[in-house]
Amino acid sequence: MVRHHAKAHGVEAESDSAVIAAAISQFQPSLPLAVALSGGADSVALLVACAGKWPGQVYAIHIHHGLQAAADDFERHCVALCAQLNVPLIIQRVDARYAAGESPEDAARKARYKAFSAAAKEGRAPGAIKDIAVAQHADDQVETILLALSRGAGLPGLAAMPARWERDGITYHRPLLAVPGALLRAWLSERGIAWVEDPTNTDERYTRNRIRARLLPALEEAFPQFRETFGRSARHAAQAQALLLEVAQQDLATVGSPPVIKALQALSEPRQANVLRHWLLQQQATPSAAQLEQLLSQIAACTTRGHQIHLKVATGHVTRAGAVLQYAAAVDKPA
Amino acid sequence: MVRHHAKAHGVEAESDSAVIAAAISQFQPSLPLAVALSGGADSVALLVACAGKWPGQVYAIHIHHGLQAAADDFERHCVALCAQLNVPLIIQRVDARYAAGESPEDAARKARYKAFSAAAKEGRAPGAIKDIAVAQHADDQVETILLALSRGAGLPGLAAMPARWERDGITYHRPLLAVPGALLRAWLSERGIAWVEDPTNTDERYTRNRIRARLLPALEEAFPQFRETFGRSARHAAQAQALLLEVAQQDLATVGSPPVIKALQALSEPRQANVLRHWLLQQQATPSAAQLEQLLSQIAACTTRGHQIHLKVATGHVTRAGAVLQYAAAVDKPA
Repeated sequence: MVRHHAKAHGVEAESDSAVIAAAISQFQPSLPLAVALSGGADSVALLVACAGKWPGQVYAIHIHHGLQAAADDFERHCVALCAQLNVPLIIQRVDARYAAGESPEDAARKARYKAFSAAAKEGRAPGAIKDIAVAQHADDQVETILLALSRGAGLPGLAAMPARWERDGITYHRPLLAVPGALLRAWLSERGIAWVEDPTNTDERYTRNRIRARLLPALEEAFPQFRETFGRSARHAAQAQALLLEVAQQDLATVGSPPVIKALQALSEPRQANVLRHWLLQQQATPSAAQLEQLLSQIAACTTRGHQIHLKVATGHVTRAGAVLQYAAAVDKPA
Repeated sequence: MVRHHAKAHGVEAESDSAVIAAAISQFQPSLPLAVALSGGADSVALLVACAGKWPGQVYAIHIHHGLQAAADDFERHCVALCAQLNVPLIIQRVDARYAAGESPEDAARKARYKAFSAAAKEGRAPGAIKDIAVAQHADDQVETILLALSRGAGLPGLAAMPARWERDGITYHRPLLAVPGALLRAWLSERGIAWVEDPTNTDERYTRNRIRARLLPALEEAFPQFRETFGRSARHAAQAQALLLEVAQQDLATVGSPPVIKALQALSEPRQANVLRHWLLQQQATPSAAQLEQLLSQIAACTTRGHQIHLKVATGHVTRAGAVLQYAAAVDKPA
């Protein structure tokens, strides 16, 4: 754990400030606003900028991850910073344990949302917080795109992180999505504001840290504007994905749920794939590209009354039941 | 100009051969097949592999770029190689000059297609060549994806290069799209087959060469499977793009061409954007993301009879003409 303090180098200070000021000036949340504060550089910068723009109307929410060794250190820093900024701090403790069959990432995400919801409803801001800002920045966005490409993801992955989304009645914002991470650190240093450096950030066993240390510098050298252009491609993917979802919903209304095989066959193959993926996701089954392709070819071949369809998808099976498809999740055997 | 000769290093020879053999075994063109042969490693490897699979049924087409200093050297190598392989060689000379107002890339692409068409119809393979194979490989595909991201491209760019497409009655194929470039060179070296090295390939003033020299090694280190996964994401983008095109064509039939403003307003915004982009491309006008966004907002605001629409798109303007939009390209002033 390293506690960083100001180094007033002042290099490019003016343009750093201008980029961050532009991002914050375009940011128009409902007030009061809560800022998700980890104690790291990005969220500290976001809190300082927001508290400066809307004095007296900004809260901080700190999520304390009980199982992480450094968690108490992060919390102490948040307490001190918020006292200095005169910002009310809401601390939520999160149980990082997860249920059997649940991925640690899913469990952590659910726990985080639950904690944000609870914090927004907490006594010190009674029922008032409807907007929460989180501090992911342009480097995080590029990393997310590269991680999507590294898994061969489709549009939902290539769309990366949205600048705004809603969940449980709360609007979440990412106002720093166009700001390079290094600018946030320089901006804090110029202001003499300290942050906590997560020691795992430099551990290259984590893919995200390897991307940051190795890949982003190479990208920067090849394409100095990569943060802006990669972000633009991600927004194109997000718009396309929104349209595909709209078409899937319309087509599902047409083919029915469960889908009527004859009605599916009347659609083009790309549209069948789109609506079947949508239907399967509603059944909590994520099909692989290969499974979807096989399903399409079985549907195309399904021209006689006796034709069977039987295909493993996710943990269950898609089968034919008369005129329609059906999906059955695997059932645990009785003990 | 360096003429490379065999270095029988034999490292990983078996797996190199297996990857290339798998790619060629899955490749099922109509015969006779022509291979586009530059004389560089990739197309030499493709020709050797195809001539080995279909003896007596493979032609080579070499396009001689008149203005390039090294062009004669490439041609000499192609002549010698084809004589050695007993493969008929068709040489087409291409005029690399381009008209005013035309981009050099567009002009070169058009000239290349014209030359391929002419070669396919040439006397030595009378009317018989309907399939042409080109040698772009997995590294080329990743470079194409990165170039798309470096311009902030949408789905058509992120879809990168198709494995198969048709033009002027000819089916083009890229059978090596899953094969790493280095494998092709190793495979040739093991077989003692020479190729011509393009001296501009190492010139890092070209973006593509900078990507190859700097970025691909960093990607390989972070994600050893990057060629496969980036290619999968590109195929997802291509499928999504095919679906968006289908929806655009349907929606254009609904809103009309030129589009009726009231009919446009009945569509969701992502669908309006999709159909307007499609309509504008048909008018030879490529809208920027910002222009499309402005057009959407002007259409949304168009609720009174007197409302004007006037927006610069590409080299022309979109305006309102009563109930419909119209696009007028800029007209050159009379002299």
